[in-house]
Amino acid sequence: MKKTYLLTPGPTQIPESVSSIFARPIIHHRTPAFQAIFDDVRGNLKYLFQTKQDVLVLTCTGTGGMDAAVSNLFRRGDKVLVVNGGKFGERWTKIALAYGLAPIELKVENGEAIEPSQLEALAQVNPDARAVLFQASETSTGVRMPTQEICRIAKSAGMLSVCDAITACGVFDLPMDDWGIDVLITGSQKALMIPPGLAMIALSEKAWAMTESCDLPHFYFDLPKERKAQAKGQTAWTPAISLLQGLQESLRLLKEEGLHNVFRRHELLAKATRNAVAALGLELLAKKAPSTAVTAVRLPASIKDGKAVPKLMRDKYGVTIVGGQDELEGKIIRLSHFGYVDRFDITTGISCLELVLNELGHKVELGKGVGAVLKTFAEG
Amino acid sequence: MKKTYLLTPGPTQIPESVSSIFARPIIHHRTPAFQAIFDDVRGNLKYLFQTKQDVLVLTCTGTGGMDAAVSNLFRRGDKVLVVNGGKFGERWTKIALAYGLAPIELKVENGEAIEPSQLEALAQVNPDARAVLFQASETSTGVRMPTQEICRIAKSAGMLSVCDAITACGVFDLPMDDWGIDVLITGSQKALMIPPGLAMIALSEKAWAMTESCDLPHFYFDLPKERKAQAKGQTAWTPAISLLQGLQESLRLLKEEGLHNVFRRHELLAKATRNAVAALGLELLAKKAPSTAVTAVRLPASIKDGKAVPKLMRDKYGVTIVGGQDELEGKIIRLSHFGYVDRFDITTGISCLELVLNELGHKVELGKGVGAVLKTFAEG
Repeated sequence: MKKTYLLTPGPTQIPESVSSIFARPIIHHRTPAFQAIFDDVRGNLKYLFQTKQDVLVLTCTGTGGMDAAVSNLFRRGDKVLVVNGGKFGERWTKIALAYGLAPIELKVENGEAIEPSQLEALAQVNPDARAVLFQASETSTGVRMPTQEICRIAKSAGMLSVCDAITACGVFDLPMDDWGIDVLITGSQKALMIPPGLAMIALSEKAWAMTESCDLPHFYFDLPKERKAQAKGQTAWTPAISLLQGLQESLRLLKEEGLHNVFRRHELLAKATRNAVAALGLELLAKKAPSTAVTAVRLPASIKDGKAVPKLMRDKYGVTIVGGQDELEGKIIRLSHFGYVDRFDITTGISCLELVLNELGHKVELGKGVGAVLKTFAEG
Repeated sequence: MKKTYLLTPGPTQIPESVSSIFARPIIHHRTPAFQAIFDDVRGNLKYLFQTKQDVLVLTCTGTGGMDAAVSNLFRRGDKVLVVNGGKFGERWTKIALAYGLAPIELKVENGEAIEPSQLEALAQVNPDARAVLFQASETSTGVRMPTQEICRIAKSAGMLSVCDAITACGVFDLPMDDWGIDVLITGSQKALMIPPGLAMIALSEKAWAMTESCDLPHFYFDLPKERKAQAKGQTAWTPAISLLQGLQESLRLLKEEGLHNVFRRHELLAKATRNAVAALGLELLAKKAPSTAVTAVRLPASIKDGKAVPKLMRDKYGVTIVGGQDELEGKIIRLSHFGYVDRFDITTGISCLELVLNELGHKVELGKGVGAVLKTFAEG
């Protein structure tokens, strides 16, 4: 009788009212029944993105959405600025290089956010750059980047702001139109609480205008073609029908709770997690700008094999979290606290962590982390 | 109490043992649990494709698989031959043009298959073409193309054979290695009986060699990168986890029935459908080479509004079939008979068609089509 718990930054847990939809018989996509679902989804995606623009749905995972943004916006040789604060920032650079762009990186240390002044300086010496590509939340390090400032700087430098919000949209406030985010991208297996397989992307008028001069080859990812099709309640290619049916329900749940209540819930859960980390005498990787999506925790030196922490949590206790990637492998763990997550997911995660730290020889006072979590909740 | 029936060439019906899997809690993809599922899937995909090569799984729909093939194989300016027998043949041309290739079309009338001699002649005057792009089954017209002959001609001309088998693989026999198919592509919502969202693609050694000289930009669709990752039981990007869990079960079902028994079942159901069409005095669109996947039927002239036939079948009787696309809109209907389909799906489809033809003023003797279906089954 081992139950399983998922506390990873994607896939996230799926609400029962969503997952039960996936067991239904499938429907055809060129029907009024599908169109009604898709119309509802499209309306609620605007609410989620806080935009008047169309939010397009693509059948791919988040990286496909990033690819679609680059391959539909730019011209070969275009210079772009990339905020590289970890694995996903690096991915922007790789995509830009794959399409023959000239990315200029603003590289920051793992765990650091950028200072707006750094970006301002970079934009000043590269006035010909066409866009700033960045993450709202860098999942590999648990850092929240200053999205509003980045968009302001990009705008005043005449550049487009292209925001990977894959683990940010629906996690914390990112008002697309208010902040002037030109391109906003998210994925289905994150705050949207459905399985991976869909990416969502919205473009500002300025970004749509840039697609017209794009000379990069693309076919499956054709944003103007999708825009035209989706305005009519259809998609350019066969959509991932069942995921869209689930998305209808998960968006309904988000709307019912209220987007800003969702953000407040995530904030509280993130704060409780950080307080537990401090109470246990552990250190955050992201000290100055921790993300509301995921908390990255440095493992103490007394634990020789850092990969053993998430492994033991999963294999012995059924609690799945993630470790670090690439050069952070074995050095950190990452606890996620967004999506279909409540107070007792946090007490479960911290409880399990306390047990495992002790078992691996790093003694902590059992209950101390959980106590800090509960105190945070009690204070509201 | 109106039940619904799906007789469309994708999405196809989903077996209950598959759809129930989608209601389960999601698992994380970087875990031994996922790896075990994916290993099983990869083994059974080789059985399905009848190949020793790796069959890669991509998170996208079939068109994404076609895009991946083109954008990973060719060089800008490459000449390719395209068999264009309808909407999906035309799609090869559009993809080739999007990537700056020079497609030469072998265009055949709607409902016609190519004659091998036509392709031989075209290959002779274009010895510099690098590949032949074609459909094993052209879904828009219900035509089966001569895959074995096309591959033989391509091979002897030193060209690659690139086969869109999206509504063919798992429908009828397409032994990849035996026939020398260099690239074989399929999609999840077809013979694989799961929702749309996955494409599968396998490459011959010759095709893999060609990827090395490819100079077309691509990122999300990176076949060599996927090959490396998938050989280790992982995917380059987050996979569509739940669809892969369903795929494991649907492949198990296919293997349990036996691939060649599946083909025989499809053949029998297709024959029964064609016999019903003849018994009702209707005409096939594909007279010479009808596909085992889908039967396209010309609507009689007495029916003024051809789009009313599938509409009435669906809205009044709950039976969803598809009509024609583009210039065939309103002129044909298409009845699908592959995937999770048995004898009584065919009697249901033909029964409904008989009722609707009469209601729309084209009088047929009720039961005559169904009688022909049953006679076909009785004769086995």
